[in-house]
Amino acid sequence: MIRLVIDCFGGDKSPSVNVEGSIRALEQFPDLSLILTGDETAVRAELDRLGASEGERLSVVHAPDVIGCDEKPTDAIRIKKDSSMMRAVQLLRSDDDISGMVSIGSTGALVAASVLRVGRLRGVCRPAFCPILPTMNGGIVGICDSGANVECKPDYLRQFAVMGSRYLEQVYGVENPRVALLNVGVEAEKGDELHKEAYRLLSDTPGLNFVGNMESRDLLTGRYDLVVCDGFSGNVLVKSTEGTALELLKKLKRDIYSRTKYKIGAFIMRKMFAEEKEFMNYQNYGGSVMLGCARNIVKGHGSSDAVSFAKCIEQAYRMEQSGLSGLIEADLDRLPNAKI
Amino acid sequence: MIRLVIDCFGGDKSPSVNVEGSIRALEQFPDLSLILTGDETAVRAELDRLGASEGERLSVVHAPDVIGCDEKPTDAIRIKKDSSMMRAVQLLRSDDDISGMVSIGSTGALVAASVLRVGRLRGVCRPAFCPILPTMNGGIVGICDSGANVECKPDYLRQFAVMGSRYLEQVYGVENPRVALLNVGVEAEKGDELHKEAYRLLSDTPGLNFVGNMESRDLLTGRYDLVVCDGFSGNVLVKSTEGTALELLKKLKRDIYSRTKYKIGAFIMRKMFAEEKEFMNYQNYGGSVMLGCARNIVKGHGSSDAVSFAKCIEQAYRMEQSGLSGLIEADLDRLPNAKI
Repeated sequence: MIRLVIDCFGGDKSPSVNVEGSIRALEQFPDLSLILTGDETAVRAELDRLGASEGERLSVVHAPDVIGCDEKPTDAIRIKKDSSMMRAVQLLRSDDDISGMVSIGSTGALVAASVLRVGRLRGVCRPAFCPILPTMNGGIVGICDSGANVECKPDYLRQFAVMGSRYLEQVYGVENPRVALLNVGVEAEKGDELHKEAYRLLSDTPGLNFVGNMESRDLLTGRYDLVVCDGFSGNVLVKSTEGTALELLKKLKRDIYSRTKYKIGAFIMRKMFAEEKEFMNYQNYGGSVMLGCARNIVKGHGSSDAVSFAKCIEQAYRMEQSGLSGLIEADLDRLPNAKI
Repeated sequence: MIRLVIDCFGGDKSPSVNVEGSIRALEQFPDLSLILTGDETAVRAELDRLGASEGERLSVVHAPDVIGCDEKPTDAIRIKKDSSMMRAVQLLRSDDDISGMVSIGSTGALVAASVLRVGRLRGVCRPAFCPILPTMNGGIVGICDSGANVECKPDYLRQFAVMGSRYLEQVYGVENPRVALLNVGVEAEKGDELHKEAYRLLSDTPGLNFVGNMESRDLLTGRYDLVVCDGFSGNVLVKSTEGTALELLKKLKRDIYSRTKYKIGAFIMRKMFAEEKEFMNYQNYGGSVMLGCARNIVKGHGSSDAVSFAKCIEQAYRMEQSGLSGLIEADLDRLPNAKI
């Protein structure tokens, strides 16, 4: 049995999507067991609505409070012990049988709680945030770190590469993932000292399929499976990719509605546009995971629906099922001169 | 008379677009005078083709060599003294009457030559690269620095803000430009030490319309006129924005061609699609300028056509005409605790 704890609040459509996603996941995986945290009246009302009830594989733990996205993360995780997120983290810490957690609440609070409360796997310098984006040839690309560590050392970047590679292999079935270093040019000597040294370390890491530097313009080409970056530039990369796609879609829509003729054309092409929209919907690619944490922690988008929430649960489930944590620890043990 | 030197090689369609763009600019501005550098036979053949000839406002200086985009910038500017770019730089240095230069050749070589050979304005710590992108509400946004300085100090970022503001005001007529700092979140305390300190400095700079931190996802919203960043994350920002837009357009085109029905719909919408393409064509927004250099240096895209090349010349012309350099020096003189 794989046991996970589910933070039922903090999203745009919480707790309904969280509870419905949980039920979907339970139906999909017979060896999955979930503990839902949040206001018990609200959570139970959702269970009633869905015709589900508590039992051996599903229980509710009361937590009346919610951490808002505008709260300062380090304060929130210290003060709001009765929040759905911190109650989930507390369960994760106190019960060794619970292997992971899913939340669509405050990213900052979850990152802070993961690092400060849950702890790291053996050998990990810094846990890192790894979202997945779709590529233009129908594949995916992971970005690690996308914002948990705004200040990095070269050694951290090497660990991000090792952890991210193993994650893509185990959870997404990517064989021998092609790893690139985000830089300002493709030549080996590009970038600041951090990136020059990271390039050298990555080149010298046995077992890693390091293919060199990547410029941000090539993220979506499908030529790379994992992009390694410091959390500052990784955050800029992910958000500008999402932002540009979103703004362009919005402009396209506005322009279509500006003339009847265009509306007719768009009607003929409605299936294609629906597919483009679906393709660019980040929710279809699951949540971001915190790699290197002692437990499997998945953060879904705040605007997740039940289907994407269930996908986040599936990610945490597959991380545990594949033994990802143990594999990462073994990988890090083998790293030359790993600074532990 | 405003005199500029034009590097006629190094672009995808050089020297024809360079020479044609030069003739266009000369027709537009009666008080403009241009010196063209490059292989004189090739350049004169282009002039002949266009029915133009040398005279008081147009001359050719022979430079048989070309710097390729794959050459190491610092080596290239040292060794290739007979290249069209370095001959142009040499003229810029030796003749005080020449106020600027336009090139569509190697960005790296031009940045290196600007910094190492041309020198800085009084008070400037580091010249910075400032491209312009279109925003979704029909405006523009400048990004400074986009890659000339991969390692920065807080004081540099403040200077980028001051120089970029003045540039947008003088060359693009933006009144009181709204300046944002690129960061991983909007709150004041976000980011690494560099960005926290830069935030404090920008907040305390008199005369600057600093509106706070910006996340990369909001670059194209039209809420900001200038985004200040270190050259590493600025480079990631600009290239990922361009790359995402380009990849999405390519995908859209591929999908349209996949079915006859979609081709019909796209035919009805052809004017709209042409407008979208034109809107996203970076060439329409001019080149990137090197702010803080002793002369006005403009770098156009390597794939520029004659129209966009003429726009780059116009930028250098307007920089000189508006007295931008003197205004920037005066602005920097007034900065509290400016480290000169």
